[in-house]
Amino acid sequence: MTQPLYDRPEFFAAYSTLRRSVEGLDGAPEWPTLRAMLPPMRGLRVVDLGCGFGWFSRWAVEQGAASVLGIDLSEQMLQRARAASPATVTYQQADLATLSLPAQAFDLAYSSLALHYLPDLVPLLATVHQALTPGAHFVFSMEHPIYAAPSHQGWSATPEGRRCWPLDGYHDESVRRRTWLAPDVVKYHRTVGTILTTLIRAGFTLAQVDEFSPNPAQIVERPELDRELDRPMFLLVACTRNS
Amino acid sequence: MTQPLYDRPEFFAAYSTLRRSVEGLDGAPEWPTLRAMLPPMRGLRVVDLGCGFGWFSRWAVEQGAASVLGIDLSEQMLQRARAASPATVTYQQADLATLSLPAQAFDLAYSSLALHYLPDLVPLLATVHQALTPGAHFVFSMEHPIYAAPSHQGWSATPEGRRCWPLDGYHDESVRRRTWLAPDVVKYHRTVGTILTTLIRAGFTLAQVDEFSPNPAQIVERPELDRELDRPMFLLVACTRNS
Repeated sequence: MTQPLYDRPEFFAAYSTLRRSVEGLDGAPEWPTLRAMLPPMRGLRVVDLGCGFGWFSRWAVEQGAASVLGIDLSEQMLQRARAASPATVTYQQADLATLSLPAQAFDLAYSSLALHYLPDLVPLLATVHQALTPGAHFVFSMEHPIYAAPSHQGWSATPEGRRCWPLDGYHDESVRRRTWLAPDVVKYHRTVGTILTTLIRAGFTLAQVDEFSPNPAQIVERPELDRELDRPMFLLVACTRNS
Repeated sequence: MTQPLYDRPEFFAAYSTLRRSVEGLDGAPEWPTLRAMLPPMRGLRVVDLGCGFGWFSRWAVEQGAASVLGIDLSEQMLQRARAASPATVTYQQADLATLSLPAQAFDLAYSSLALHYLPDLVPLLATVHQALTPGAHFVFSMEHPIYAAPSHQGWSATPEGRRCWPLDGYHDESVRRRTWLAPDVVKYHRTVGTILTTLIRAGFTLAQVDEFSPNPAQIVERPELDRELDRPMFLLVACTRNS
C-alpha cells in the first residue's frame, strides 16, 4: 500500500496552501510546457492518474473531453475534487501501485507529479498500456531524478561561491525519505535512463522529453524561479501506446 | 569548421595516453553497456562517426560487419586508424558538423563521445537519418549534460561533507570552454530533453536510454570509478530510423 500521505492532516493542510492547490493549473510553473505536450482534448476519454483536487480533470472537460476518470489515493483530495466538478468527471479512490483499469477504454492517460511516489513503475505502466487504445497518448510529469536523488536536497555553493545543486547518489535507485510539507515523506528515485527505457519496454513510443525550465516572463512574475535555471526540477514526458 | 582539437599536438599527445586510447574499447568503462545496445554486427554496413583511432571500426569488422566507414576530423587520428585496420574499413577525413553521406547506404550509425563537440545536432541528425535504411540503428554515447553543464566542472562537497557534483547552469544550452588534456577545449551543452526530443523530431524512435553507471567489478578493478555512482557521466542512446 502506498502511503496515504495526502490524507495525513498536517500534510493535507500544508499542501492545500500551495500555489498550485489554490490557483490550480496556472499556479504550476510547468503547466504551460505540459499543456503544449497534450493532444487536443475534444472527444477524448481521459484518465487522470493522481488527480488530487481535480484541476486537470476539470480543465480536460472544459476543453471538450468526452469523459474524465480521476483517480487518487487520498479520500480528502477526492472529496474536494468531487465538490468542484461537473458530472462528466468521475472520481475513484485507488492506489496507483495496484490500479486496474478496463482494456482500451481511454484515449489519454495523464499524470501530474505522482509517479515518484511509486516503488515500481512497471505495474502501473502495464495497466496504462492495456487501458489505452493503440496510438493513444500518455503524458506525465514527475520529480526530475536530478532533483530527487541528492542526499542533501537543498541549494549549496560551488567553491567559487555560485549557487549550485549538490548532486550525489544519482545511480542509487531506491527510496528517499524527505521532509516536504511534513516529515518522513516517502519517494522513489530512478534515473532518467531507467524511467525512459522502462516506458519503451512497456510498449510506449516516446514523442517528447522535456525538463521544466522557467521562461523569462515567469521569472519576472516569480523571481524565485530563477534558480530553476540551474537544475532540472521536473521531468515531462509525452508518449504514445504502440499498436 | 569544428575545432581541429585532436590535431593540436599537446592534446593529441595527452589523448594518446588515455586508457581508452591505449587499450581500446576495453579501456572505456561505458563500452560494455554501449556494446549491449548494439545490434548483431554480421553483414551490416556501418558508419562510425568520430572514429578516432578506429577501435570500434575494427571491432565491427571483427564481429562480421560487411563494411565500415570511419569518419574523423583529425588527420592524425586517421593515420593511426588506417595503419591498424584491414581493408574492409575505409576512413574519411570530414567534419561531422558539415558531413554528407550517401542515401540509405548504412544499417548502423555509431558514434562514441563526439556529439558534444557539435554546435548544432540538427544537421548531423538529418545526415544520419537519410544515410540509414528505414529501421536501421543509430547508437551513440556523448558526455552527459549533467556532466557537461556546470560552471565548476569538478567534485565538491555538500554542507555535510559528502562528495557531490555541483550542478548549475543546466538550462543554459550553450558553449562550454574547458581545460581537458589541453586548455580551451570547446564543447556544447544541451539538456537531456533537448537531445532526445531533437532525435525524435529528426525521425528516430528511441529504443534505449542509458546513463553509464560502473558495475561492482569495474569499481574493484578501478576504484576511482566509484565516484561515477554519484553523477551520470555519459549519455548512451540507441534508436532506429523511422520508416
